[in-house]
Amino acid sequence: MVISNLESKSMFKRVVIIGFGLIGGSIALSIKKNRLAKELIAWDIDQDCLRKGAELKIIDGFAETINKASAGADLIVLSVPVGEMRGVLEQIDLEDQIITDVGSVKGAFVKAVEEVFTKVPPRLIPGHPIAGSEKKGFGASEANLFEGHSVILTPNEESDKTALEKVAKLWSLMGCKISFMSAQDHDTILAKTSHLPHLLSSVISESMYDEPDRSSALAHAAGSFRDMSRVSASDPAIWADIFLANDLRLIESLERFLVGLEKMKNEIAAGNYSEVKRFLERGKSVRDHFSSITKEL
Amino acid sequence: MVISNLESKSMFKRVVIIGFGLIGGSIALSIKKNRLAKELIAWDIDQDCLRKGAELKIIDGFAETINKASAGADLIVLSVPVGEMRGVLEQIDLEDQIITDVGSVKGAFVKAVEEVFTKVPPRLIPGHPIAGSEKKGFGASEANLFEGHSVILTPNEESDKTALEKVAKLWSLMGCKISFMSAQDHDTILAKTSHLPHLLSSVISESMYDEPDRSSALAHAAGSFRDMSRVSASDPAIWADIFLANDLRLIESLERFLVGLEKMKNEIAAGNYSEVKRFLERGKSVRDHFSSITKEL
Repeated sequence: MVISNLESKSMFKRVVIIGFGLIGGSIALSIKKNRLAKELIAWDIDQDCLRKGAELKIIDGFAETINKASAGADLIVLSVPVGEMRGVLEQIDLEDQIITDVGSVKGAFVKAVEEVFTKVPPRLIPGHPIAGSEKKGFGASEANLFEGHSVILTPNEESDKTALEKVAKLWSLMGCKISFMSAQDHDTILAKTSHLPHLLSSVISESMYDEPDRSSALAHAAGSFRDMSRVSASDPAIWADIFLANDLRLIESLERFLVGLEKMKNEIAAGNYSEVKRFLERGKSVRDHFSSITKEL
Repeated sequence: MVISNLESKSMFKRVVIIGFGLIGGSIALSIKKNRLAKELIAWDIDQDCLRKGAELKIIDGFAETINKASAGADLIVLSVPVGEMRGVLEQIDLEDQIITDVGSVKGAFVKAVEEVFTKVPPRLIPGHPIAGSEKKGFGASEANLFEGHSVILTPNEESDKTALEKVAKLWSLMGCKISFMSAQDHDTILAKTSHLPHLLSSVISESMYDEPDRSSALAHAAGSFRDMSRVSASDPAIWADIFLANDLRLIESLERFLVGLEKMKNEIAAGNYSEVKRFLERGKSVRDHFSSITKEL
């Protein structure tokens, strides 16, 4: 899809961000920085952070209810945890707003949308920026959180072309690379490349929980532990939501992982050097492939 | 242990580094930078990289055999892969050299030493710098690879005090924090904080090996995958060695990990939000503990 040369300055009249945490706050900062909206409004259950956001002029105003916030908007961005999307959708009176979201699971979101609105409204474009942080909350927001990152949009055949184009353009102007795929493909890929790694990171950390001399062990932890435990510091509530919302695909990718792990366990127990080495070579070839794609070093 | 104020400039007359790869090369660079040896000699199976090292004046010379290299040294640093230590030890004629190594598994090294020399010579001080890189070879060496990192020394009751002090001082002058523990404790801790994370990283990467549309999946991989797959790019031969040399403890820590993973799988399958969240909270508390210890952010 070619993103046409839409007017980039104030391309939206009134943008409403529902959920003013790490992601919602970062979107607000980026919209302000890039002047993508004439008016930027937010709602959050925590009205204190909204007052703070207004004081800092990150938002132009805030509303007391989702219903009031979303009335008259031309773009609504839903950035609440996956498990809270349905409750938010129920409070929106559909007008001709474009609606998008930032949830990490798209199948469950689309299902919630269908349950609330009977079908996916043509101007509702599900989305997912592949960016984030193990930190949480509005205080951790950054204007450039999304720059250089990938955003996946999952329109369907009935999606409104203008709405899709405007949502893609918004992310593009925030510095993102846009991809389009089905909600199902999104959830399958993300199970393998995000949800499973997150789960494993938590299990790695948790397996040290009842370590008798934990401080000493952690003080000698290597770079591998540092890297592999990082995302286990993420918000437990948000990730419990994501794991349950993508449960089937997550368990499917976990089963594939367990096959490999069981094989390695057996080969190590048998002292089978050549098989262990061959397995590590296969893993290395995937990581090298990843590095060649992302130019990560 | 208080490291006494030994003469730091040229504290060794003739240092010999056996194995001139990432670690051996970085030790050479750091010894040169900090002027810790009057003469610095290296040996490697790859004589080309030795010639390169001599050309670049990183080493003062090199020997054709381990036996020739180690004669007349006052310090021998063994930095070959864990599985090659025994073969190297067999070629050393014991004089009064101080010998240390940098292997990631200490029990297997001590066992090899006992087999070759019938007991651990008092002036042999096993060591392990907790630093490295997924890169390999002399070309990836860095003079500051060890700065700020932890080095574990595993002396026994018969270790020579001066030898221990000089090895500790060497690492200390190279910018490291020194810890002392038994070889057994080292291997137990490292199984959990290094060997298991390395193994899991390889399994994470390997589980994408036969992915039908691997390029597309990897192009959308999140930061969690980037972090968690990093060390799977490490040298397969070196890590196959390490896994087999610490097999029992690695499998023990893997079993503990599998208990947690199985629990999470079951709770996710059952849709048990509160248990999933509680587990993630336990993991987060360990990572937060780690961050508070290491001041990692």
